[in-house]
Amino acid sequence: MIKGYKKIIDETLLSYFEEILNNKEHLYSKKTTEAMKYTTCLKGKRLRGVLCLESCRIFSDDYFVAIPSACALEMLHSQSLIHDDLPSMDNDDLRRGKPSCHKVYGESFAILAGDALISLGAQIIIDKTSKNIPPDRILKALREYLISAGIYGIVGGQTADLEAENSSLNLRENEEYLNYIQNYKTSALFMASCAIGAILGGADNKKIDALKKFAQSFGIAFQMADDILDVISTTKELGKTAGKDEQENKLTYVNKYGLDGAKQKLKRQIRLIYDILSKEDVKSEVFKNIVDSITAKIF
Amino acid sequence: MIKGYKKIIDETLLSYFEEILNNKEHLYSKKTTEAMKYTTCLKGKRLRGVLCLESCRIFSDDYFVAIPSACALEMLHSQSLIHDDLPSMDNDDLRRGKPSCHKVYGESFAILAGDALISLGAQIIIDKTSKNIPPDRILKALREYLISAGIYGIVGGQTADLEAENSSLNLRENEEYLNYIQNYKTSALFMASCAIGAILGGADNKKIDALKKFAQSFGIAFQMADDILDVISTTKELGKTAGKDEQENKLTYVNKYGLDGAKQKLKRQIRLIYDILSKEDVKSEVFKNIVDSITAKIF
Repeated sequence: MIKGYKKIIDETLLSYFEEILNNKEHLYSKKTTEAMKYTTCLKGKRLRGVLCLESCRIFSDDYFVAIPSACALEMLHSQSLIHDDLPSMDNDDLRRGKPSCHKVYGESFAILAGDALISLGAQIIIDKTSKNIPPDRILKALREYLISAGIYGIVGGQTADLEAENSSLNLRENEEYLNYIQNYKTSALFMASCAIGAILGGADNKKIDALKKFAQSFGIAFQMADDILDVISTTKELGKTAGKDEQENKLTYVNKYGLDGAKQKLKRQIRLIYDILSKEDVKSEVFKNIVDSITAKIF
Repeated sequence: MIKGYKKIIDETLLSYFEEILNNKEHLYSKKTTEAMKYTTCLKGKRLRGVLCLESCRIFSDDYFVAIPSACALEMLHSQSLIHDDLPSMDNDDLRRGKPSCHKVYGESFAILAGDALISLGAQIIIDKTSKNIPPDRILKALREYLISAGIYGIVGGQTADLEAENSSLNLRENEEYLNYIQNYKTSALFMASCAIGAILGGADNKKIDALKKFAQSFGIAFQMADDILDVISTTKELGKTAGKDEQENKLTYVNKYGLDGAKQKLKRQIRLIYDILSKEDVKSEVFKNIVDSITAKIF
């Protein structure tokens, strides 16, 4: 199932970029489109897209209706990777095992590629979602996308993350602060992914909220695993530079609680997620497989 | 009329940023919100917002319905200014007579502020537009916003602009190329401004297209005037660094046709616009005043 989802996301993403590149009216903006395509189409797990499709499938047989949104979410995720890797941000030369966008296309085109991915994703949700879906439902889905993209989502989390690097010990000792960073930097996009799938699948608000609760908890576990892997893995295994968090004085679970402390927290978080998945009537083998996959290299 | 429009746009923009800054849940992302507010709320002509409100008023007495969109368009415009001024882009330290966003808040927060303005503008169109407007009309307006923001709009034009700086003489001699840059870098956002106002005002597609035609021609005239002013004005008058276009080998009307040639072209363009404004049944004193204002310092 996950493989099938991944395949259709990869193929559809490619087709969207080919459509722009083949548009003769827009030959002169080719370089930015290529930069957008480069990072978005690098081999990735497509977790956000898969969560979106599966969240739709839970409520509707026709999960195909969520494919454009799944691709839009992957574009938004790629945007955040491209801008995060910039020299003035996290300054990382490696992403998904390949040179970062700005290393290949230069900083200016990497900035433009990120900018254009934000609006392209939203445009795709409008243009490519089946005309059978009523406009108020598309607006509702779009709103989730936009919120996760901005100051109430990824950008808010990234801001807090950058502030933590330069902040006084006082702020760093604040438990709430680390939670804020992870909720907005990581969980926000997972929450939007599940919410959009559920909305397009016709779920009511109660069901949408249940899925969001799962996605939020999953995001925290995902970030804990990411922080742990940064310490215990090699750069080759990660596909991005290993050991950067400590070097840059990032406020991570490992830097705050130590490696063993972070592992304990992750174990507790996984139990919490399993609890949510059993109680809240959001049963899905795909969700369980995804949760298991993020800890596979740790325990 | 223009002054009234400007006032309501300025006040509403301020209130939107205050709303975010007063949101206690988002204290930790304050720095980026302040960077967004800083550039957006600097004294500006609010041309895009004014065009949007007037385009709505032509078709509906209740132009208030377009106020959130007018503010959204000013946010999008500010986004393009913030990212254009970055060191890896046009590298300008001055904007609207004040230090550029990245000079005040640093590069990373300027990048994040731009990113968040794109999605915030779109979110405001959804959240703040009167609930009396049917969702399909809001989607239609939103689509214009998104197209102008991305690869089919500002980003496309900015890409071609950057490519021209480094390109062979061959490409620079191509008349079509300069037109592409100006159509997408400058006209696209004016076109979206008029289209969104008209859509929210209830205009049919024929009327929307007529307004877009005006906006496109106006955008070209605006850019010609901008290129001319870059040469004949002081930095203080412009509020941004004067004389940069020549220095950076930009493909502008002045660099291509000389100062006198560009002035001649601007005169012809203004006549063309007046022609559109009389024939196409898009009569508006506000539009005429705006057209006159851009040439006031030149002829």
